Amino acid sequence: MTYQLVLLRHGESEWNAQNLFTGWVDVPLNDKGRAEGVRAGELIRDAGILPDVVHTSLLRRAINTAAAALDVADRHWIPVKRSWRLNERHYGALQGKNKKETLEAYGEEQFMLWRRSFDVPPPPIDDADEWSQADDVRYADLGDEMPRTECLKDVIARFLPYWESAIVPDLRAGRTVLVAAHGNSLRALVKHLDGISDEDIAGLNIPTGMPLVYELDESLRPTVPGGRYLDPAAAAEAAAAVANQGR
Amino acid sequence: MTYQLVLLRHGESEWNAQNLFTGWVDVPLNDKGRAEGVRAGELIRDAGILPDVVHTSLLRRAINTAAAALDVADRHWIPVKRSWRLNERHYGALQGKNKKETLEAYGEEQFMLWRRSFDVPPPPIDDADEWSQADDVRYADLGDEMPRTECLKDVIARFLPYWESAIVPDLRAGRTVLVAAHGNSLRALVKHLDGISDEDIAGLNIPTGMPLVYELDESLRPTVPGGRYLDPAAAAEAAAAVANQGR
Repeated sequence: MTYQLVLLRHGESEWNAQNLFTGWVDVPLNDKGRAEGVRAGELIRDAGILPDVVHTSLLRRAINTAAAALDVADRHWIPVKRSWRLNERHYGALQGKNKKETLEAYGEEQFMLWRRSFDVPPPPIDDADEWSQADDVRYADLGDEMPRTECLKDVIARFLPYWESAIVPDLRAGRTVLVAAHGNSLRALVKHLDGISDEDIAGLNIPTGMPLVYELDESLRPTVPGGRYLDPAAAAEAAAAVANQGR
Repeated sequence: MTYQLVLLRHGESEWNAQNLFTGWVDVPLNDKGRAEGVRAGELIRDAGILPDVVHTSLLRRAINTAAAALDVADRHWIPVKRSWRLNERHYGALQGKNKKETLEAYGEEQFMLWRRSFDVPPPPIDDADEWSQADDVRYADLGDEMPRTECLKDVIARFLPYWESAIVPDLRAGRTVLVAAHGNSLRALVKHLDGISDEDIAGLNIPTGMPLVYELDESLRPTVPGGRYLDPAAAAEAAAAVANQGR
């Protein structure tokens, strides 16, 4: 008995294309991003890997990527579960800032620390900042758990309880699970699945719109470390491009 | 204490525009239908009637109309529940048939009986028919409940258990509920809410893409019989057009 898990990072958003830090800002997909969602759906359909349930973040770029993919794969009708715990990393005071300008203003070392260090978050965002989510009704129930900034370690801490309580039970029930989420919430998951160290996770980039399939054994360990992309050549090319963002 | 319920019939599908009986055939929206979904979202947003949860059928024309509307209203992140019990009436052997040709072949009396009688279903569809859903995996768990044809009475019988067990609890919890469904599943609901007789329901047409808002009292009776359309002039015009289909 093995379990089947499909990870899908949302397609390109309007801010990805503008090279802005997005985080919890709820930016829409652009045309390329919508096309990536459709392409992802074609890949899972053609591979015959048909999700029985989908888990998404509360952000429209993940929600709409999943919807586009599932519609193409004729799985638009499956149960949907959503949680803020699948959201992108909260980028703190960097939300809404241009990546290139941030790099120039703070220098390479500080920039890479904020982008890739395991446990150093950016400065917290002010609740009055135009890109704060402090007053967003969808997070009204979070109370003290509402982040104002996050490092990857923080993302892991709020993601793993959802993995254990919501996603694992679906897998154990024999369902093929699609997780439609974000660069950092998916890195949190991959780090957990593959047992990647706090240091090595910095080098892992997950490309947008590329279904990444994990087959898991009874202990929920990957039968193939790192899983497999349904379009490996395109995934490798895209991962390299992500690594060069901000340059 | 009152409860707030919003009904939304899906926008125009490719088969609405071609004047074919659709039923459980999972036809996509056309461009006009997608625009209707967006317009519905603008209306609920501008009215400040913001759904806390959405219930849809298992058919993409309802699923995608709801998704378009909720995205525009910035409520794409709310919980989603889906059930076959919200599906359109199963149109039996008429599925895939042209309405005008059916009218000409069988005559006005038989045609209107199939379209509008309370308890006379069309002939059942053969499981081998290209427009049958007998082998559709999304209905694999229905067993003996899987319909091969339905009259409105049948729709009511399979819809009301879902109303009681899934929608009413959301209302009682104080949630504004959006039900995104179909001409006949929504007629079943309106008949129940407004206490419309088996005879009079034949004359009720619900236009596509027009949010219909019911405020319900403690007994779940409408405070205003028939509810209110957020765009009453457009709804009246569209209802008249529905009544003339097949002519």
